[in-house]
Amino acid sequence: MGQTKLMSFEKHHEESLAAIGESMYGLIADLYPICRSITGKGVQQTLERISVEIPLHVEKVPSGTRVFDWTVPKEWNIRDAFIKNSKGERIVDFKKCNLHVVSYSQPVHAHMSLEALRPHLHSLPDKPDWIPYRTSYYEESWGFCVSQRFLEGLQEDQYEVCIDSSFTDGNLLLAECNLPGETEDQIVVTCNICHPSLANDTLSAVALTVFLAKHFLKVSRRHSFRFLFLPATIGTIAWLALHEQEAIQIRHGLALSNVGGPGHIHYKRSRRGNAPVDKAAEYVLNKTVNKFEIRDFVPYGYDERQFCSPGFNIPMGCLSRTPFGEYPEYHTSADDLSFVKAEYLADSYRVCLDILYVLEKDGFYVNTTPKCEPQLGRRGLYRGLGGRMGGQSLELALLWVLNYGDGHHSLLDIAQKSGFPFEMIYKAARVLEEHGLLRRQDSP
Amino acid sequence: MGQTKLMSFEKHHEESLAAIGESMYGLIADLYPICRSITGKGVQQTLERISVEIPLHVEKVPSGTRVFDWTVPKEWNIRDAFIKNSKGERIVDFKKCNLHVVSYSQPVHAHMSLEALRPHLHSLPDKPDWIPYRTSYYEESWGFCVSQRFLEGLQEDQYEVCIDSSFTDGNLLLAECNLPGETEDQIVVTCNICHPSLANDTLSAVALTVFLAKHFLKVSRRHSFRFLFLPATIGTIAWLALHEQEAIQIRHGLALSNVGGPGHIHYKRSRRGNAPVDKAAEYVLNKTVNKFEIRDFVPYGYDERQFCSPGFNIPMGCLSRTPFGEYPEYHTSADDLSFVKAEYLADSYRVCLDILYVLEKDGFYVNTTPKCEPQLGRRGLYRGLGGRMGGQSLELALLWVLNYGDGHHSLLDIAQKSGFPFEMIYKAARVLEEHGLLRRQDSP
Amino acid sequence: MGQTKLMSFEKHHEESLAAIGESMYGLIADLYPICRSITGKGVQQTLERISVEIPLHVEKVPSGTRVFDWTVPKEWNIRDAFIKNSKGERIVDFKKCNLHVVSYSQPVHAHMSLEALRPHLHSLPDKPDWIPYRTSYYEESWGFCVSQRFLEGLQEDQYEVCIDSSFTDGNLLLAECNLPGETEDQIVVTCNICHPSLANDTLSAVALTVFLAKHFLKVSRRHSFRFLFLPATIGTIAWLALHEQEAIQIRHGLALSNVGGPGHIHYKRSRRGNAPVDKAAEYVLNKTVNKFEIRDFVPYGYDERQFCSPGFNIPMGCLSRTPFGEYPEYHTSADDLSFVKAEYLADSYRVCLDILYVLEKDGFYVNTTPKCEPQLGRRGLYRGLGGRMGGQSLELALLWVLNYGDGHHSLLDIAQKSGFPFEMIYKAARVLEEHGLLRRQDSP
Repeated sequence: MGQTKLMSFEKHHEESLAAIGESMYGLIADLYPICRSITGKGVQQTLERISVEIPLHVEKVPSGTRVFDWTVPKEWNIRDAFIKNSKGERIVDFKKCNLHVVSYSQPVHAHMSLEALRPHLHSLPDKPDWIPYRTSYYEESWGFCVSQRFLEGLQEDQYEVCIDSSFTDGNLLLAECNLPGETEDQIVVTCNICHPSLANDTLSAVALTVFLAKHFLKVSRRHSFRFLFLPATIGTIAWLALHEQEAIQIRHGLALSNVGGPGHIHYKRSRRGNAPVDKAAEYVLNKTVNKFEIRDFVPYGYDERQFCSPGFNIPMGCLSRTPFGEYPEYHTSADDLSFVKAEYLADSYRVCLDILYVLEKDGFYVNTTPKCEPQLGRRGLYRGLGGRMGGQSLELALLWVLNYGDGHHSLLDIAQKSGFPFEMIYKAARVLEEHGLLRRQDSP
Repeated sequence: MGQTKLMSFEKHHEESLAAIGESMYGLIADLYPICRSITGKGVQQTLERISVEIPLHVEKVPSGTRVFDWTVPKEWNIRDAFIKNSKGERIVDFKKCNLHVVSYSQPVHAHMSLEALRPHLHSLPDKPDWIPYRTSYYEESWGFCVSQRFLEGLQEDQYEVCIDSSFTDGNLLLAECNLPGETEDQIVVTCNICHPSLANDTLSAVALTVFLAKHFLKVSRRHSFRFLFLPATIGTIAWLALHEQEAIQIRHGLALSNVGGPGHIHYKRSRRGNAPVDKAAEYVLNKTVNKFEIRDFVPYGYDERQFCSPGFNIPMGCLSRTPFGEYPEYHTSADDLSFVKAEYLADSYRVCLDILYVLEKDGFYVNTTPKCEPQLGRRGLYRGLGGRMGGQSLELALLWVLNYGDGHHSLLDIAQKSGFPFEMIYKAARVLEEHGLLRRQDSP
Repeated sequence: MGQTKLMSFEKHHEESLAAIGESMYGLIADLYPICRSITGKGVQQTLERISVEIPLHVEKVPSGTRVFDWTVPKEWNIRDAFIKNSKGERIVDFKKCNLHVVSYSQPVHAHMSLEALRPHLHSLPDKPDWIPYRTSYYEESWGFCVSQRFLEGLQEDQYEVCIDSSFTDGNLLLAECNLPGETEDQIVVTCNICHPSLANDTLSAVALTVFLAKHFLKVSRRHSFRFLFLPATIGTIAWLALHEQEAIQIRHGLALSNVGGPGHIHYKRSRRGNAPVDKAAEYVLNKTVNKFEIRDFVPYGYDERQFCSPGFNIPMGCLSRTPFGEYPEYHTSADDLSFVKAEYLADSYRVCLDILYVLEKDGFYVNTTPKCEPQLGRRGLYRGLGGRMGGQSLELALLWVLNYGDGHHSLLDIAQKSGFPFEMIYKAARVLEEHGLLRRQDSP
């Protein structure tokens, strides 16, 4: 993976990335067998496991609730599902692989010919051994997902088909881990919790979100951090509908998805395109030796498609390794526990933590003696014996921060203008603040 | 010519470009023999021929009228002109080629030596067989244009020189074809009608303007279209002086010139540089497989130099094939009926029609459910069975239009941001409008 | 040096650059032996010599005066300094080279061992024959600068060390040559006068400033010109503190340094980055055939670091040949009279004069007949016989100035947009102004 060193901010450099990668993998392994959908017991079990790691607040949104243009659907639960041949053998068994059932399938129990069954079977012709993942949230139907090889081997027979599912008035579950900070400015990290046994999409993002939350739990925070665990689309829309006022206060957002597989980091810009989160991501990625790719916003993807709808336009980017739909294992049974690796998870963790730290530490400052330079020498901030000056000394960093400390340049802007590392510019700002030469300002 | 296919908007795809090219060529052939100048009977005859094709409104501006810094000159007419040698032979005959006489020549009838005649003869030393085109609108003089070969063959002799021209109080003629639309927002197309037998400059533009008008006559229009046929400079200035209030309402302008010869399309940007007409031309040209060139505004050229004067700054671009002055035949007898071709005319027609259609169909829209995505599924606008999404489907086009339907992005902006064809974005907007999810807005 | 021709403005083309280069060199040679520091008799002597060339106004700022965050230090004078060996030989003699004493050294007279003396000796290990230049303005200490070779040859001995310096309540001297112009808009050129025997840094800049002032003394001026001769840092800060209201009126500033050595011109942009002085410098440098380099602002360097502090943000650039710290002779005894050359000085003079002339002649104009073109023909400004137009004729320059004479484009902007030489655009503006077609406007 090349360089996996964290930026050298005070608190977080002691963490062992390798150990965190392993822990994230362990959490994914625990969550993998659970059959999740946008509602139902699988979501609840998942949240219970996450609660072992971090404090979670779970909000229940009853079926039938209107959220903007949408309505919360009934809760879907499934106990069992199978296809039996005429010998009574379970040739397709939900208990062996929960991808076998199209999510939100209607209940069915019937005997039928192959011809009648055929339209309800989904496969991937070009990947004969893989089982696809399909959903039918907003259309009443039922179906099974099977491998192409299995499908081709099916004989004319009388099949017993059973999906023991139920639709009941229940709840959509929205979970969050809130970590208040010194200010009410919010940083939000989101992931989705609605997929069944798919390791990279999106369990990897769940594990990463959990471990980012674990990290910020332990440190002092200027921003308030909020880590969201939401069923995709309907969950995100419900959260925004029920938290509209809070949403407006979000300063920086990051949606996570597909962060555990091979392939290099992809960062997708927020709709604004040059929001602080976009600049921070670009800055952090440019510092790594690893390959990466930055893309402009497009209006489909993960939670950012709702947060970045024009009525909100919240500055939320999306970080992935290979993005959804661009690797063959995506939405198939091949996205399993062998596809994600601790080292990829650790690298994604490092990049996210660095981005979040830049956002946390960045700010706008005002030089309190803006006319000419202050006399740094008598404050012990300047070498006594005049001579050559060069390189990237803290002294020069002080001059950069003083000169661009005009309330219009963030520390990250100054880092980029000067070419100095963000950490050094941040340190210079702290030193100047201690000497009363700089004052933090709320916003530009 | 490579691709000459029109964009696939509803109405205009049925036209046969080849047939239209032939018809334009026919009109040029009809107009070619007429001796035009900025005033006089030639202009009138030309407008009469155009009236056969489209409804024309002709405005008469009397000689002596002040138009901004200028004064409308006397009407110039010419019945005959010749140079006879001492044998009485017409060695230069206006009736054989109307380029022989410098336009706006004073009347003269005299006998003179070669030495006295010589300063009144104009030729092109480096193109020995071609006759140049010269004018003397605002300086009292007379002259003949001849080939260099002819000039060199002239013997010492007593010549009879006659220009039977007259200057009378008459009228400058300004012609326009007005096609009102649903709104008062205007699209203006202009060409000049002051040149004698020059096929590419500017009869090709006259023919193209006529056939664009014929096309828009037949279709329903959101914009009001105005097609102007003006004597160069003084006619354009007079039109702007007499229509100042209307000029301010022009949303998009396109000046045409030199559109019938070989060479690829050149589009010259309006003074604003990024007006919608500039974006539309760039978009359309980028879609063709043919070579093209886009240039920045310069303050000389055709009607755009007046429309883009700083007191108006109307967004008018100029479309040519090889621009004036950049091909040797320009302003010579070699710019004849063999120099223009139906296929070049047809290609220019296609490009102009596509540009005008983008301007006609483009607009600013507002998403009526701007917070989160609307539920497209229950309106039948989204696939029921979730899975992979990619390529350039109408579904994705809907998402692009919804997300950037914020009143600040035109459909063309959205097409360029998304990389989707303008027609698909336009279609998506129409679909969303029909479902009440989008509302047209007057201006950004 | 390649091209050293001045731009062809009326007045200044008669000057002989070669002769001016020689005169500048002569002035440097006169000033070189004087021992200058930020205060003291050396500065006074220097200003007296400059007064022979140009009228100087000298302002005295008493020791102890508060200027922004700083306090004017005591006046430092030095009569003699030496190190004698036990034989009584002056092995280090201030009278032979004034770089031998650290500037602002405390007085000392003592006998000491080599071991005790050693920490007070400064040398350049990698340049064994050169003597470094050191200062200790704001820290109480004393020291000698010697060559590395000398240092290595020192034997164990009892040395007599003497620095006969004094610190008294005196004055900091700020000198300026003010040349009022037709308007109160100011152009400021600055240089520093605090260095002892260093020819390129900064005596070359002193000489260049003097000769620019001599030039503008002789010509009529639209701008008021102010040429500043200031002790570095404290002098600049004191001047800004005492002239705060005037400083705000500075339209264009140019700091000079290191302008007499080999190496190509470097222009460092003002903090604003695209101020008129930045555009003018870039324009002039792009016109020369010589190599050059343009750099963005950084908050260290010469007077521009104070003028460009955020509380002032005055548009001041800095012009050098090889910038400070980037050539090995910088701040050493090798920066002597053999390092600077008349031809380099002349080339720097040419570039500065051209930049200052562009600033002096540039301006914003308004077309008085902004609707359509005015009729240039009847004013004798346009060829009578219409035909081809091309190249860079004055006629086309007239059209450029008329079209962009909208009060928002400076003449330099128009020169750059059109690609025409600035002088031609300026001439066109003058012609149009004479014909009442253009009117100068105070500011954009």
